[in-house]
Amino acid sequence: MRPGEFEFDHVGIAVASLNESSGFYQALGLAVGPKETVASEKVQVQMFDLQNRCRVELLEPTSPESTVARFLQKRGPGIHHICLRVTDIRATLKRLKAAGVRLIHDEPFRGAHDCEVAFVHPSSTGGVLIELSQPNA
Amino acid sequence: MRPGEFEFDHVGIAVASLNESSGFYQALGLAVGPKETVASEKVQVQMFDLQNRCRVELLEPTSPESTVARFLQKRGPGIHHICLRVTDIRATLKRLKAAGVRLIHDEPFRGAHDCEVAFVHPSSTGGVLIELSQPNA
Repeated sequence: MRPGEFEFDHVGIAVASLNESSGFYQALGLAVGPKETVASEKVQVQMFDLQNRCRVELLEPTSPESTVARFLQKRGPGIHHICLRVTDIRATLKRLKAAGVRLIHDEPFRGAHDCEVAFVHPSSTGGVLIELSQPNA
Repeated sequence: MRPGEFEFDHVGIAVASLNESSGFYQALGLAVGPKETVASEKVQVQMFDLQNRCRVELLEPTSPESTVARFLQKRGPGIHHICLRVTDIRATLKRLKAAGVRLIHDEPFRGAHDCEVAFVHPSSTGGVLIELSQPNA
């Protein structure tokens, strides 16, 4: 990616059970990626890899206090968030803040795969929880 | 794409107003793509292009009878569907049907950009409306 470019990274889907919901994505024929536990988010993640540097991530809560568990209780299974890759997350957050966009995190934090990530509030994006991620930061 | 491969194509976001909701995606810095009216779906679409052959599509209903208008009434703004590119949509639908997946369309139909498309019911996918699209069919 060149400076200022954006790529789609992944879509995160909240499910009650990775085992039950993986069946469709396997039947579809997606390449089964790694399964990981993200302790900080209290979720287990099953990844499916697409060819154009994108992933589908199924998210199963490992605790009723996980934000994904609360999402499931409130809305049922479905898309929890999407993630876009950026080349300079600090500059991007600064620009959004200056434009009056409501950020969940003003400063990025260390996410999975050594990325630096931050979330934008759905109230500013058309109802979509958006994760921004700068790889190998 | 080689036979059997999959790519992420776009995420479709239902919004009440393209003008209001485009502001965030412009402030983010995404490349503004074309704006189109899709008469068959009764929506106006504002596209934003990402670098890895993906798009964000904002969908504003042009009629209260549009499925996107009904989605907005029921759930408010948010992600309406995601679209995955496939190399052989007929073979994919056949495979899914054989696996017991609930399809909205057993046979593909002609969508935008001369693609052949069909939708998979959310009850089979973990709560996500999934469009499958075969380009330049």
